[in-house]
Amino acid sequence: MRSVLIRVGVATALLVGAALYARADSDSLSSWNDGKTKQAIVGFVKRVATPGSPDFVIPEARIAVFDNDGTLWSEQPMYFQVAFAMDRAKTLPAKKPELASMHSVEELVAATHAGMTTDEFQKLVTDWLAVAKHPTLGRPYDRCVYQPMLELLAYLRLNGFKTYIVSGGGVEFMRVWAEKAYGIPPEQVIGSSGKLKYELRDGKPVLVKLAEVEIIDDGPGKPASIQRVIGRRPIFAFGNSDGDREMLEWTAAGQGARFAGLVHHTDAEREWAYDRESHIGKLDKAWDEAKAKGWTVVDMKSDWKVVYPAAE
Amino acid sequence: MRSVLIRVGVATALLVGAALYARADSDSLSSWNDGKTKQAIVGFVKRVATPGSPDFVIPEARIAVFDNDGTLWSEQPMYFQVAFAMDRAKTLPAKKPELASMHSVEELVAATHAGMTTDEFQKLVTDWLAVAKHPTLGRPYDRCVYQPMLELLAYLRLNGFKTYIVSGGGVEFMRVWAEKAYGIPPEQVIGSSGKLKYELRDGKPVLVKLAEVEIIDDGPGKPASIQRVIGRRPIFAFGNSDGDREMLEWTAAGQGARFAGLVHHTDAEREWAYDRESHIGKLDKAWDEAKAKGWTVVDMKSDWKVVYPAAE
Repeated sequence: MRSVLIRVGVATALLVGAALYARADSDSLSSWNDGKTKQAIVGFVKRVATPGSPDFVIPEARIAVFDNDGTLWSEQPMYFQVAFAMDRAKTLPAKKPELASMHSVEELVAATHAGMTTDEFQKLVTDWLAVAKHPTLGRPYDRCVYQPMLELLAYLRLNGFKTYIVSGGGVEFMRVWAEKAYGIPPEQVIGSSGKLKYELRDGKPVLVKLAEVEIIDDGPGKPASIQRVIGRRPIFAFGNSDGDREMLEWTAAGQGARFAGLVHHTDAEREWAYDRESHIGKLDKAWDEAKAKGWTVVDMKSDWKVVYPAAE
Repeated sequence: MRSVLIRVGVATALLVGAALYARADSDSLSSWNDGKTKQAIVGFVKRVATPGSPDFVIPEARIAVFDNDGTLWSEQPMYFQVAFAMDRAKTLPAKKPELASMHSVEELVAATHAGMTTDEFQKLVTDWLAVAKHPTLGRPYDRCVYQPMLELLAYLRLNGFKTYIVSGGGVEFMRVWAEKAYGIPPEQVIGSSGKLKYELRDGKPVLVKLAEVEIIDDGPGKPASIQRVIGRRPIFAFGNSDGDREMLEWTAAGQGARFAGLVHHTDAEREWAYDRESHIGKLDKAWDEAKAKGWTVVDMKSDWKVVYPAAE
C-alpha cells in the first residue's frame, strides 16, 4: 500500500513540477539570444506571474497588446494589406474604371474592399493568401511572421497572459489568418475598420463593407481602441514605430509593473534596416521616448537567432 | 494495494461524475418555471455542448450575446443610464448653464459625460451606484437585475459559453458594474461609445470623453458591433425589444443550431408590462418575427419564479 501511495505521490510531484517548470520556462524563447533584451522580458514575466511576488498581477489583468505590421510580421517593401489591395485592384479595372485615377493607398484599399459582404471579403483574403508570395522573401505572406515573436506570444500565454493584436491594419483582413499564424482568436484582434451596413440579400442578413472609415486604430487611436474594446489597461505592449508610441505610453503609465517594447529593424541582411527616415514604419519619436523612459528596444540583428520560421 | 487503487478509482469516478453532472445541471436554472421556455434553453445547450451530438459546437464558437436594458436588468420608468445622467446634470447647472435648454436625452447624456477622463467617469458611476436607488423598486440599480437571467448566464458559462453584453447603453457606463453584477468582464461588454481623445495632463496620458458619438450599438448597429469586436457570429442571442431584432436575425441566420430569445415584459405586478406601444423597450416587429421564425419568447409572468435577487 505504501508503495502505491509513494508512486501516486511521485506522479503528483512530477505533474506539479512539470506545471511549475512550464510556467517558468524561458527556454521556450529559444530564438532569442541571451542578453539584456531577453532578460528584460523574462524578468518582467516572472515578476508579474509569480504568486507572492510584490509585482504579482492577477491573470485577468495580464493583458498584452502587440502591433502587427513590423512587430509580428514584416512590413516591407509595403504593408502586406496594400499588396493584397493592389492584387485585388488588378482584377477590377474593367468593373471599376475610377480605380485608374486613384492617388492614395487609403483610397485604393477602401475602393477595392467596399461593397462586398464580410463573408465574401474573408474568402477573398483566404484565396489570396493561398497563392500570393512575398516579392523578395518568396514565401506566403502569413509565413513572413517573426519566429521570436511567435515564441514570445506563446510564452506570455503560458504565463496566463491574454494576447491581443492592436494594429492599424484592417481588422477583417487580419482575423482571416491571425489565429493560425499567431494563435490569436478573432475577438482578440483589434484593428482599423470601415463602416458595415446591415441588409437582407435574398432574405438572408449580410454585413456589407462600406468605403467609409469607422475606426483608425493608429497613433492616439490605439489607446482609444484598447479602451473601447478591452476596457482595461494592458500591462505589456510591443510595437515598432511612431504609430505605437501612444499605446506604449498608455501601457507604461499604468500603476504597477509594466513592460513597453519596440522592435528596432536593424537587420538589412535577414530582414530590413530602417528607422527615423523610413516612409513605412518610421521609428523616431517613439525611439527617443524609449531611450528616455527605459523601454526595451529589440535589436533584431543581435537579439534574434532567426527571423522567420523554417520554410515548410 | 487493491483497496487503495479502488479508493483512487472511486474518487476519480466521483470527480468525473460531478463534472458531468455540473455540465448538465439545468437545476441551476432554479428561478425558471418548468415549461417550454426552460425546455427550449436547456435543450439547445445540451445539443450544442454534448460531445457526439450532431449539433455539437466547439467551445471557442459558443458565443452568447445579451442585450442589457430590459433583458438583463429593468429599463423602466427610464433607462438607468438616463437616471444617472439626470442626477449628474443636477450637480452641473452652475457650471454648465446650457444644460437648462437641452431637449433630448442624447444631448443630456453627451453633455454630462463629456470632458472628463475615462478614470474620472468610472469613479463618478461607482459613486453614484453606491448611493442611488431605483425610484419605485427602492433598491440599488445594480440590484435591479433579473435573477433568472443571472442563472442563465452562469448556466451558459458552465457549459463552455463565452457570455457578452451587446447593448445600446454606454460601454464605459456598463463596465463599471457588469463584472460584479453579471460576472461579465470588461472585454466582453460591447456598447455605444463616444469618441475618446488621447492627451497628456501633467505629463500623464489620459483618455478624455468627447461629446461626439463614435458607435451606436443599437438596431442594425448590433450585428455590426459584434462583427467589429468579436469577429464571429454568436450561436445564442437574447434581447427584449425591436432594437435587438437585427442581432437576433444575424445570430439565427448562421449555420448549425442557433438560439434566439426575447424577454416579453408581461408582469405589471412584479416588474412592468409593456410591448408594442411602449416608448421604452418597444417590442413590435421583433415580436412578429419571433412568432414567424419560432424564436423563444419568455413570458416573464409565467416563466419566472422570481424577478429580482433577494434583497441583501
